[in-house]
Amino acid sequence: MADPLPVSPLAPAAFPALAPIEGAQFAAVAAGVRYAGRPDVMLALLAPGATVAGVFTRSATRSAPVLDCQDKLARGFGAAEHGPAAILVNAGNANAFTGRAGEGAVEAICAAVAQAADVPANRVFTASTGVIGERLPHDRITDALGQLVGSLAPDGLANAAEAIRTTDTFPKGATATVETDAGPIHISGIAKGSGMIAPDMATMLAYVFTDAAIPQELLADLLSEMVDTTFNAVTVDSDTSTSDSLMLAATGKGVSLSAEHLPAFREALHGVLLDLAQQLVRDGEGASKFVQVTVRGAADTADAKRAAMAIANSPLVKTAIAGEDPNWGRIVMAIGKSGAQADRDALSISFGDILVAEQGWVAESYTEDAGAEYMTQQDLEITVDLGIGAASFTAWTCDLTHAYISINADYRS
Amino acid sequence: MADPLPVSPLAPAAFPALAPIEGAQFAAVAAGVRYAGRPDVMLALLAPGATVAGVFTRSATRSAPVLDCQDKLARGFGAAEHGPAAILVNAGNANAFTGRAGEGAVEAICAAVAQAADVPANRVFTASTGVIGERLPHDRITDALGQLVGSLAPDGLANAAEAIRTTDTFPKGATATVETDAGPIHISGIAKGSGMIAPDMATMLAYVFTDAAIPQELLADLLSEMVDTTFNAVTVDSDTSTSDSLMLAATGKGVSLSAEHLPAFREALHGVLLDLAQQLVRDGEGASKFVQVTVRGAADTADAKRAAMAIANSPLVKTAIAGEDPNWGRIVMAIGKSGAQADRDALSISFGDILVAEQGWVAESYTEDAGAEYMTQQDLEITVDLGIGAASFTAWTCDLTHAYISINADYRS
Repeated sequence: MADPLPVSPLAPAAFPALAPIEGAQFAAVAAGVRYAGRPDVMLALLAPGATVAGVFTRSATRSAPVLDCQDKLARGFGAAEHGPAAILVNAGNANAFTGRAGEGAVEAICAAVAQAADVPANRVFTASTGVIGERLPHDRITDALGQLVGSLAPDGLANAAEAIRTTDTFPKGATATVETDAGPIHISGIAKGSGMIAPDMATMLAYVFTDAAIPQELLADLLSEMVDTTFNAVTVDSDTSTSDSLMLAATGKGVSLSAEHLPAFREALHGVLLDLAQQLVRDGEGASKFVQVTVRGAADTADAKRAAMAIANSPLVKTAIAGEDPNWGRIVMAIGKSGAQADRDALSISFGDILVAEQGWVAESYTEDAGAEYMTQQDLEITVDLGIGAASFTAWTCDLTHAYISINADYRS
Repeated sequence: MADPLPVSPLAPAAFPALAPIEGAQFAAVAAGVRYAGRPDVMLALLAPGATVAGVFTRSATRSAPVLDCQDKLARGFGAAEHGPAAILVNAGNANAFTGRAGEGAVEAICAAVAQAADVPANRVFTASTGVIGERLPHDRITDALGQLVGSLAPDGLANAAEAIRTTDTFPKGATATVETDAGPIHISGIAKGSGMIAPDMATMLAYVFTDAAIPQELLADLLSEMVDTTFNAVTVDSDTSTSDSLMLAATGKGVSLSAEHLPAFREALHGVLLDLAQQLVRDGEGASKFVQVTVRGAADTADAKRAAMAIANSPLVKTAIAGEDPNWGRIVMAIGKSGAQADRDALSISFGDILVAEQGWVAESYTEDAGAEYMTQQDLEITVDLGIGAASFTAWTCDLTHAYISINADYRS
């Protein structure tokens, strides 16, 4: 193992105080899957009646645990009537591209969790993150189950956030409370990932819990509705892992979500998901700048997203930002290559409040000094108005620095 | 300007001796468009009867000269009956995103070249490469036209290759001679490009000339047929420029291309185009490794290209190669995210002759030592067999190194 990486300069000041979720308990343990002397397996136990939804990587080479989760959810085992549920996650080994043995490991873990925690095996969801292509030593996980189940606690979610880290330089959590006439609804979630990056040592996992009672179908709809503008709106390096998993569970022990609660709940859930997603970018490998890219005035949302992601993923835009160079020509380039409908003379580009380009050329009021001064900030906002339609999309990314190369090239796995 | 970059370690040993092209003359001059004390404008003059074809960037923010060339070719001015033709290229300023002033500059240059070289204005093709968004000082170019026209010479193509360089660390040329029963056919070409190199062409200009007589329509067909497997098969950083131009001109002063010559000519032309395209990768910004990525066994060619380009563009694959890390898990990741039809248990991966993975896991015969030893080479071959169909595609890329970051972030433009 390489030396531990320094904490990202973009990390939040502190890990948040996560609201406890009635009907959910969490534990973490050091099972030695790959790392020594640190927690690397987490277990979440959800009371009978919990509903569970998930969205996963679309990779054609997705991992064995992802395939297993997708299969179980497709068969309807996310619904409340099937009893309690469990989520087990290990760090250090992705159990991806491990052939039939990988599927066997998932089966063995699910069976052991089912027995140890008294949960139906088809309600046990797992994820593995870490090195690709190495056999998962699943007995190290199953051997630790007794200790895991024995230490389950309502306030264990912060420990779980620690246990799922791989190359993350800080643990990631977010929380919200929605006040309703029927009482408060709590939402707490954790995530890991230094971007969509390394299937090698990092992938994106996120688990969000609420004590509200939410029917299975609505839970799944809420999650898929929100993923586009949160986890699918962040990028570190345009690489997508074999293990990406986002799960949302509702224990049903608190407020029954009614139509009148929905707008406030939706807003709070979106806030938690976006907070976690942005923390992935803030821990992007080698990141020194946090960049919001908004494209508006697009013909449609797909075009807006295409242009925003082309800017957010462009190595030339990201290296310019790393160099604090207000190189707006590279933004023009990225818009041009994106495939989005664009018109040179209609589009405008701004850095923060500074209008940089409009009417097909640099803005008359723009000065390189103002642009260069703006670029020295840690949090940057790039806004493009395509001047064609009314659709918009916002993406978040980080810069591309020497440290990214060091982490991925100089450190040998 | 920053210090000159060191010559790429992947550069060819020497610039080739380009076969002269009867009916074509070339000149270069130091016009001081942006760089001082080096040639930065080239002129090619083609005898009456020459046919001209071109393919250009599909960027929505393409430059004024690209739009002008496309317009002229669409109107049919590539055909022989319109008289002589000229190509003028400047380095240092891209004349892109320069509003209406950019179009005016192109018009002024074309009119001046037409007068100075006695060529119809609608047969004058131009290109500009360099900084985006700055007004092109076109009078510096038109002021130098007398000197340019006065120094036109049949053997001036090598000087032209020097003049079109921007961040290129070496000039790029390629040549071929096809022996036919009617005499030899000569093909000689030059190119520039180093960063912003991506599929769908690159910040890349290439001009290829032949003395054969080739009807306009056939010339255009040959060029568009060949671009997919040459210039559209190389990538440095997945960024696509606003200026990419590839032009092919046939002076008609030599052999009349007949159906029986066509196979040999096609092979030779493809060889010249591929040689130039590969030289772009060999001069990729910061490159220390030249990598051939072949995907075969794909369902169709589009899928093969999708998977090959996903591997060739992946920052994680490219940083692993820079670190000489045989990280085949990242290749699995790239195949998975590409969108190509793939089956974990059917695909195999090889480094050169070394079988790395097959049947959904690492190959039994593979050792990390053998992989690591292979990776120390300068020229690498990655082969993926998807095991699904019979289609294949080969792409060429380079690694992603600290020097790429330095060139694009540390050096201020």
